[in-house]
Order: sequence, then structure tokens, then C-alpha cells
Amino acid sequence: MQSVAIVGTGLIGASFGLALRRAGFQGSIAGVSSPGVVAEAARIGAVDRAAPLAEAVGSADLVFLSQTIGRILDTIKKLEPLVRQGALVTDAGSTKLEISDAALGTLTRCQFLGGHPMAGKELRGAAAADAALFEGCTWVLTPVDRTELDTGPAAEFVGWLRRIGAHPVSMSAEEHDSVVAYTSHLAQLASTAIAATVADSVPQADLRVAGSGLRDMTRLALGSYELWRDILATNTEPIDRALEAYIQKLEHIRENLRTRQTQVEFERGSRLAGNLREKYQKI
Amino acid sequence: MQSVAIVGTGLIGASFGLALRRAGFQGSIAGVSSPGVVAEAARIGAVDRAAPLAEAVGSADLVFLSQTIGRILDTIKKLEPLVRQGALVTDAGSTKLEISDAALGTLTRCQFLGGHPMAGKELRGAAAADAALFEGCTWVLTPVDRTELDTGPAAEFVGWLRRIGAHPVSMSAEEHDSVVAYTSHLAQLASTAIAATVADSVPQADLRVAGSGLRDMTRLALGSYELWRDILATNTEPIDRALEAYIQKLEHIRENLRTRQTQVEFERGSRLAGNLREKYQKI
Repeated sequence: MQSVAIVGTGLIGASFGLALRRAGFQGSIAGVSSPGVVAEAARIGAVDRAAPLAEAVGSADLVFLSQTIGRILDTIKKLEPLVRQGALVTDAGSTKLEISDAALGTLTRCQFLGGHPMAGKELRGAAAADAALFEGCTWVLTPVDRTELDTGPAAEFVGWLRRIGAHPVSMSAEEHDSVVAYTSHLAQLASTAIAATVADSVPQADLRVAGSGLRDMTRLALGSYELWRDILATNTEPIDRALEAYIQKLEHIRENLRTRQTQVEFERGSRLAGNLREKYQKI
Repeated sequence: MQSVAIVGTGLIGASFGLALRRAGFQGSIAGVSSPGVVAEAARIGAVDRAAPLAEAVGSADLVFLSQTIGRILDTIKKLEPLVRQGALVTDAGSTKLEISDAALGTLTRCQFLGGHPMAGKELRGAAAADAALFEGCTWVLTPVDRTELDTGPAAEFVGWLRRIGAHPVSMSAEEHDSVVAYTSHLAQLASTAIAATVADSVPQADLRVAGSGLRDMTRLALGSYELWRDILATNTEPIDRALEAYIQKLEHIRENLRTRQTQVEFERGSRLAGNLREKYQKI
């Protein structure tokens, strides 16, 4: 791997460039983004140079798509005539099935391997980029067949993921989208919904009664719809199922506010919350 | 105010004792609790001595009930023959209407003024007590009539609340219970429900895909049912209404995953989450 094109040099793309450099990558890194964004990425050393898509992609062994989902889908449509024979194209989109289907239906001269680093920050943009962003974080890869991980370009890419501190994990795009519908998308919508419910029902002056619990539960609600629109549009069915399960659970608790059934749910929930924290400590 | 009885010397009771001392209170503080708990409170200086209920209450100008809700209700039943004529009895229970009704129906020789400090910690018990626990926190008082705040004992108590750094706020017990159903009880149940839903639907091995968002959303789920049983039992109707509103909001989002309606909810939720954080900064 001598040459990388990072398409979209926001938080994830710029952090990937910084992380590669810190891990010892000595090849070239071209950045494709709007002029101001890619200039910032170049300034912090995440990319060597700004380049138009065709030029950056034409010489790259690895094409890393770290835009929003909608833009990744747009970029994929343009890639086939531009990409180098035998290159690896991967992405960092938050949903995988629609992107994988689009890539596999379009790209024939290169290998596509979908990806999703489970990393993020409250802040966006190259200014918040961090060479250590992926350290200890799970990086999901979604090959259609696991042997796709054994091609030369894929094995080399996975080696770099390990070197930047990520934990590569392989699962199907369907499984990824189904799991993140619960662990990420449901969490976002539950937070947005509780914030909007409190906004509807509690007079502003009474918010002084709110404690730290509500603050925790509304942190995700601070997130912008712009990023979520694409996620909701490309993972609608799994999110619908996760919301359905959540609503059923809430109805069950509602019907059992005074019975032992709610104790069972508290115990189940507390165990899951504990497991989640053990997992974090292990990493 | 020369003499205080703290009934229940766990986190809140012991912190109240420490806070009074730090604010310059020089009278006596008796602690009523099980032997081990009150010994710990005495060891850290939150109370001067352990005493049986009758003795502690018999000599107190201020009786501070900081037990669980169920035990506060039990204690109130025993107080009338024990309490000093003209004393002030207050409490720190998380729901107010049932406690106020019980106290007002039973106590005739003293003044009862319901209270709820909006403070807490993950840790329980006197060992976690902190003289600064109430600094900057809202302390709700629930007089039936606001003139109850102007009696000598109530005014003196409110003065001490200010001296320990709390912000006293007056509202009716009904209003308190209705507001906290949204800001506290709904937040707890939403967290328990998302944790239990993920436990039902996501295989253990896939939890490595979970990010920090789910961790935030499940922190409250770590809480114990023991404390919540009494809250759910004594605030069932308001909690039922809050859950109903939350479920309706989730259904609305679910039906609009691909429409602008969901953008409206994101914006409403984001604004509330921002307001909540401004409030915190102000305090």
C-alpha cells in the first residue's frame, strides 16, 4: 500500500490519515473534500495534498470513503471509470447494506470491502481529528464472503487497522445494520424522543428540577438531523423493528409499574448495562 | 435551630449532616438508622451520636427524614406522639404527594414541610457522603400553602438550605410529582427499557459493536430496583402518563423515519437538550 485517497476529510477521514501517519505509513495520502475542509486536513498533516476525485482515486491503492452516507453513495456511482485496477475501496458509513449493494453493483475493476469504525466524537470536522481516535475501537468489516478478507489489498488494509489500534471484526452487512439499529440508532431515537417529550410536557421553568439522569439521556439528542437523515433512510426496516421492540418493552413496563415483572426488566437491564461496561474495560 | 434528628443516615442524610456542619451549624445532630449505618455516619462526623427514634425526635427542632419512601411513610405513622411541639418535620423522599398526604393526615403537634433535594450519586451509603452534595442543586419544597414557608422553623430551615448551597424552590406536591415523572422517572424507565430491549435482541458477542451512545443511555439502568419500587408505587399515575407520551412520541418518529416530521422532533429534542445544559451552567 503506497498511496491512499481519503474522500471526505472530516473527523473520521482526517483522523484516519493522522492515525496512518502515526502508525508509520510512509506513502502518499491525497484528500478529496471541499477546499476549506481539505485545507484544514492538510494543515494538521492528515493528508499531503488536496486533489480532485479523479486524480486522487486514479493513483490510489486504497480509496477510503469517509463522507456522509448519501455522499458515499454518490461517490460510488462515479468511481468505476476512475479507480485503479486492483485497488481496494472501503468506507466508513454508519449503515452498510445499501452502500455494499451499490458498490457491488457498480465496481468491477477493484475490490470493495464495506467498513464501519465504531468511533466518534461530539465534535465534527478535521479540527477535532485525533490520531488515537480508533485506538481500542471495534472496526466492523462487511465482506459478502469472508475470503474477501484474504486478498492482498484487504489483508494489508486489515494490518493497518490493527496498527492504528482498531479491532477489526467481520460480519455481514445485514447483521451489522440489524445490530446497530439497536445499539446505535435506537439509542439516538430514544434520546431524541425523551428530549422532545420533555419539551412538549414540562414548562421551561420546571427544568431546574431535572437532574443528571435526564442530562445523560439527552446527550445524543444534541446530535444533528443532517447526519441522521441518511442513517434513517438507509436502515429504515431494522430501525422500525428496533423501535417496535422498544415500544413493546415500554408498554410492558407501563402495564407492570406495580408488579414484579418490572423488577425482572430492571435486573435484565442492569445486567446488560454492566456487561457493556465490562466490554469497555476489556478493550 | 439547636437540635437536628436525621432519620436515615445514608448518602442524603449523612451528606445533609456534613453540609450543616460545614455551613457552621453548632447544635446537636442525632442519627437514627441501623447500628452499622449510623456508626459510619458518626465516624465521618455527619451525626454526633446514634439514638433511637423516640429519643432523637423528642429533642429535635428539625426532624429530617432521609430514608426510602416506604420507610418515610412508616416513620411518619410513629412520629405524632414522639415529636416536640412546634418542631419542623421535613423529608427527602423522591415522590411527594403520598408522603405529604400521610404527614398532613397524621401530624398535628408539629409542622410538616415536604422536600426533595435534586441531588444524588451512583454510590449509596454514608461512606459516599459529601458536604458539597447539595451545592448548586435545586431543593424542592412542597408546602400546601406558600405561607407555610414563612413560619419561624421553616424560614430557619430554608436559611440553612441556602447556607449549604442549595437553591430552594417551592411547588405543590402534585406539580413536583408530575414534573419528576418526566424529568427523572421517565428517564430511568427509558434507560431500563433500552437496556432490556438490547439484552433481548442483540447477541452478547455483538455488544462489541456498541458505542459510547448506548453506554450513556444505559447508565441509569445500572440503578437498583429496590429504590425504584417505592417511586413507581407512589407515583404510578404521573409515570403512566409520562410513559404514554413517550410511547406516542416514539410511534410518531417510527411512522416518520423518512419524513420531515422526524427532523422537527430532532430539532425540538436538540433545543431541549441544549436548554438543560444552559440551566446547569447557570447553577
